[in-house]
Order: sequence, then structure tokens, then C-alpha cells
Amino acid sequence: MSKDKNRVPEPVARRMPKYYGFLTEMDKNGIKRVSSKQLSETMGLTASQIRQDFNSFGGFGQQGYGYNVSELRQEIKKILGLHRSHDLVVVGAGNLGRALTNYSGFEKEGFYVRALFDVDPQLIGAQIKGIEILPWESIKEYTSNNSIDIAVICTPKDKCRQVATILMDCGIRNIWNFSPSSISAPPGVMVENVNLNDSLFTLSFRLNETAILDSKE
Amino acid sequence: MSKDKNRVPEPVARRMPKYYGFLTEMDKNGIKRVSSKQLSETMGLTASQIRQDFNSFGGFGQQGYGYNVSELRQEIKKILGLHRSHDLVVVGAGNLGRALTNYSGFEKEGFYVRALFDVDPQLIGAQIKGIEILPWESIKEYTSNNSIDIAVICTPKDKCRQVATILMDCGIRNIWNFSPSSISAPPGVMVENVNLNDSLFTLSFRLNETAILDSKE
Repeated sequence: MSKDKNRVPEPVARRMPKYYGFLTEMDKNGIKRVSSKQLSETMGLTASQIRQDFNSFGGFGQQGYGYNVSELRQEIKKILGLHRSHDLVVVGAGNLGRALTNYSGFEKEGFYVRALFDVDPQLIGAQIKGIEILPWESIKEYTSNNSIDIAVICTPKDKCRQVATILMDCGIRNIWNFSPSSISAPPGVMVENVNLNDSLFTLSFRLNETAILDSKE
Repeated sequence: MSKDKNRVPEPVARRMPKYYGFLTEMDKNGIKRVSSKQLSETMGLTASQIRQDFNSFGGFGQQGYGYNVSELRQEIKKILGLHRSHDLVVVGAGNLGRALTNYSGFEKEGFYVRALFDVDPQLIGAQIKGIEILPWESIKEYTSNNSIDIAVICTPKDKCRQVATILMDCGIRNIWNFSPSSISAPPGVMVENVNLNDSLFTLSFRLNETAILDSKE
């Protein structure tokens, strides 16, 4: 673990889940040891970058001898906080909110949706996989009675910042935002923005860029 | 437009949708002109980075005088390919595939899901918003009769690479991949990986990092 109060740089934080994914696959395939070189080829990084990444956490394994796959996976699992479970609420019980609640992949890693919230009276009281949709105005009461680690925002774009402010007022410190409007986090709050529009438009940009270049050949 | 065959660097490609988002908001709020300085403050970049980004496309507007918001938005809209419509197929009609099909935000920008595909006989023939779920084995026939710009992969992790290979064989050149397994693109194919696991684990990492740092205070 890093000894000082400096946070791990963003690119390192983004690579940790990828290491975890690769190591999980290697472990499943019965691979016992992996060298920085092999890891670096899989990750598309240099071996020295990999060692640097791991040094952010005090380093693992021995140079030249390689890493024990299962042990390294366990270390990274802990660093990612996946050795414990997390309680989530989903705000906005539309298509995406319901789909994320229904998705079993997150539960497998210990992320449990405990409640959904919506403003639509027609949705209140309905259940998704046995998880109730509650009225948005009860969020304060709910969060004061239940310890929630992460709130997932699946509201329309124009509501998301207002919703985020209320969630932060309720003491929520971690927000996973799926609305197509980025939220900037005040100190002490973590926001992970998943902007699907931006992702689709980047693909569309590349598609268009190729078409333009092809037409110029 | 860039004059050579070199592709625009990834960070620039990722920023273009963000410019578009900000300019759309400014335009909606009746803002007529914006300086590089104002844009840079909104984007969290330096003014010189912004000018460099725009120079990748030949540059827009006049230094010192600022950019015409509506015109700049139109230019970037074209660069993103959003002046034309795109036809999509969704592979995997589970929760996420159905949610993405149901989401009206993509249609507003001209992205139309034309068909869904699945292997589950129980799903075949059902409709999402009037769009039919077709048997996966008919993908080759479908894509030879219909021009498809983008395939969206919403299959389980262990199926995604196999599905991607078949899609590429069918002539699909643009893939938006939501399965938690990254696909690397061969030359001539664009893949945009949206790994929701990685995103959630990055948030969980930060949550855990804060807890560790707090406990050390």
C-alpha cells in the first residue's frame, strides 16, 4: 500500500482491474507463474511499467523469477476491495437502471443492489429480482437507516447533477454515473462517469474518420 | 480534416465527444461565442491543448476572437459522423442488450438498432420496441441483405471473442463491446470496449484506497 496520502495516479487505477481480469483468466486456465514480460505482452505495456505499477503498492513477486499468479490475483483483488462486499442503490429505475440491477455479474464480485429509487409513481413498489423500487423522496430516510457504499445514477441527463447533490447530502461518497452528463466530484467524493454517448460517438468518429481517409486514397 | 493517413491520436478522439457535449449545452443555453480560454476551463485542459486538438482537423475559428458556438458544434458534429444516421445490430438480447435497444438517447443522435440476435429459442421472435429478436445463426444472411454500420456485443464474457470473429467475417467493421472481455481489433476494424466491470472495480479501488488512507490518519 502507498504510505503517503497521495492517491495512486489515474492510469494505474484504471489498469488494476485489467490486471485482475487477466490474472483471473490465467488462474482459471491453471497457469501458476507469470513474468513481467508475459504480463506486459498481454497488457500492452512495458515490463518496467508493470513493475512501476506494482511498486505503487509496495511491489509483489521477485524480479527474474516472476509472479505467483494466484497470489498476485489475491493481492490485486484486495487492492480493488473485492475481498469485501459492497451495498449499492440505483437511482432511476428505467431501462438501464433495471438492466444493471438484473445483471448478475456484479453480484458475483460482491456488489449488491439493495434498493432502486424513482420518481415515477407507476414504478414505485415494483420489484426487480426481489429488490424494491422506492420513492426518490425517501432516499434520505433510507440512507440514514442503511449503510450504502455506492449510488448508481441512471437518471435522465437533466436530473443527474441535482440527484448527485442530494446523494452527497445523504452521505454517499461514491457515485457510479451513467447519465450522459459528467459529474465533477467535490473533495472526499469519488465519481466514476460512464458516458455511453461519448463512447458511441468515439466509435462513430473512428468510423467516419476511416470513411474520410478511404475516400482520399 | 487531417490530410495524411495518420489517425487522430486516441486522447483527441476521446475529447471530441466531450467538446460536442459542452457545445450542445452552450448552444441550448443561447451562448453565441466561446473563447479557447472558456472552453479550456470547462474541459479541464489548457487553451493551447484545445487549439492543438482543433488543428488536427485543420482548425476552426479565430484566435483572440473566439469560436462561434453553433458553427463549431456543427463542425464537430460532422467530425463525429453525427450528421448522418447509423444502423446497428445488438448481439445478445439479455438485460443489457434490451436496455440499450430501449434507450431512446441513441436514436436522437441517429443510431438505430435494426435487429437483435440471440441463441436462446425462447427469445427468438420477441420484439423490443418493434425490433425483432432474430436467431444468431441468421446473422450472415441478415448482414448480407442489410447494411450495418455497428454491431453491439452484449453476450456473456466467454462468447464475446467468438461472436466478434463471426461479425468480422460478416463484414462488420465497427464493434461496440459491452462484454467484460476486451476484444483487440485487427487492422481495418474499430472496437470500442465498454468494460463495466473495470469501471466498477476502479470505483471500488478508490473507495478502498480512501478507507486505507483514512485508517492511517
